[in-house]
Amino acid sequence: MNPAEGRQTADRPLRVIDENAHTWSPEDARARLRKGLTGATAGAAAGHTQANLISVPADWAYDTLLFCQRNPKPCPVLDVTDAGSFTTVLADGADLRTDLPRYRVWQDGELVDEPTDVLRYWRDDLVSFLIGCSFTFEWALIEAGVPMRHIEQGRNVPMYVTGRQCRPAGRLHGPMVVSMRPVPERHLAAAIRESGLLPAVHGGPVHCGDPSALGIEDLGRPDFGDAVDAEPDDIPVFWACGVTPQAAVTASRPPFAITHAPGQMFITDARDEQYRVA
Amino acid sequence: MNPAEGRQTADRPLRVIDENAHTWSPEDARARLRKGLTGATAGAAAGHTQANLISVPADWAYDTLLFCQRNPKPCPVLDVTDAGSFTTVLADGADLRTDLPRYRVWQDGELVDEPTDVLRYWRDDLVSFLIGCSFTFEWALIEAGVPMRHIEQGRNVPMYVTGRQCRPAGRLHGPMVVSMRPVPERHLAAAIRESGLLPAVHGGPVHCGDPSALGIEDLGRPDFGDAVDAEPDDIPVFWACGVTPQAAVTASRPPFAITHAPGQMFITDARDEQYRVA
Repeated sequence: MNPAEGRQTADRPLRVIDENAHTWSPEDARARLRKGLTGATAGAAAGHTQANLISVPADWAYDTLLFCQRNPKPCPVLDVTDAGSFTTVLADGADLRTDLPRYRVWQDGELVDEPTDVLRYWRDDLVSFLIGCSFTFEWALIEAGVPMRHIEQGRNVPMYVTGRQCRPAGRLHGPMVVSMRPVPERHLAAAIRESGLLPAVHGGPVHCGDPSALGIEDLGRPDFGDAVDAEPDDIPVFWACGVTPQAAVTASRPPFAITHAPGQMFITDARDEQYRVA
Repeated sequence: MNPAEGRQTADRPLRVIDENAHTWSPEDARARLRKGLTGATAGAAAGHTQANLISVPADWAYDTLLFCQRNPKPCPVLDVTDAGSFTTVLADGADLRTDLPRYRVWQDGELVDEPTDVLRYWRDDLVSFLIGCSFTFEWALIEAGVPMRHIEQGRNVPMYVTGRQCRPAGRLHGPMVVSMRPVPERHLAAAIRESGLLPAVHGGPVHCGDPSALGIEDLGRPDFGDAVDAEPDDIPVFWACGVTPQAAVTASRPPFAITHAPGQMFITDARDEQYRVA
């Protein structure tokens, strides 16, 4: 792999795709991403639901769907395609092979490429899973007055592989991945309440406070995304994360898989409100 | 099939399993049902979640799970077993082959038996799906002051096959089934709010008012369960129903399936509150 513009490395934070991306329509955002624009999609196409992607051979589709069903906090399924199809009911005219900023291609559990489209990797037996993303509830939190440190700091959200194992399903197993947002103590209740009303996009947090309870050693060294600076009164709040299927790919080594690159999501036409419970 | 005690026919409403069943523990209820007790489980083991059952050959498991994922209102999945297993994480020591009051056995989409256990029908390739049941939110509605007419009248809840088609999945297709509760106009908001907070057990209603909007011709002649008497100020409120997979079995004709008999549910150890979102 050659490092490319927009590709994240340990010492280079991933920039957001565009500072005005929140004003774009989902269709406009996908058209720009299709042409090769890359970067973090946090805040893009405000009010529209973003999704994690994992595509697996049909032979692995049942295990994947069952893994999601058994682990609904990290893997809330928003749509599943028919084998070979690269369209989704969640986004009119979208092409799942080209419309994400950056993909990851996996062979036998190893990351082999991070291209900006997967046209040359596509197979007619691939079943694609679109999984809810916590970017969806960030708007609800911001509206409730909760500051979003990573957006303020122009960075990708930090994500960590935890010591908590998911419930296995067939050949798929692996640890839960979480995203972390530092939340001022006085905003904790609002953050928990507002995200809890959106169970289809991970719902309420899985943990607040001491990272070691999740087996996380150093908040300054996330496994994916960027470290963020916390304020003195902030408490780290951890939400189950849709990168969890990628940790399952690493642990379970299916022969082939395509995923999004962490933080570089699929932007759907769905409205965040439609996943709100009350 | 021979009519048996506890088996519902058009002119004989299904009685509840016992007038004191609400005081039983889930374990006690299952032990009595295992010994052959039959009847509607509405109100039994108060505060504990009840579930619909469908067991299909492994070859049909992916289509079934995908059908549920694509139709989460009627088919919210609470657990899926591994092939051949008759235990579930939802109920310690339970046996899915014996612990429901009454089963339905289907061959090529035809109902061939309604036994009180399925020991002689069990196959090692069966995958069982436990699906949320609206009996779960009835307690929340009662606590919010909403009268439950069918419980007051000692009957099974009425269920209707609608004219609304579910989103198909592979070989599975069929219409949505709904349960109906007459709700006094002044209690409508509470009924909608309280059930909406329990999306894992069908969530808020799919329709309030005119039954013809769902293609239902006569509320007095339900397709499953018993007709209930409404009060003058009542409005019929319709919730998506976990009998929907049985309508899909009838429409799609898988070679073999086992389900619960409508209204005669599996009683789990899970607490209703754990499915409550907020």
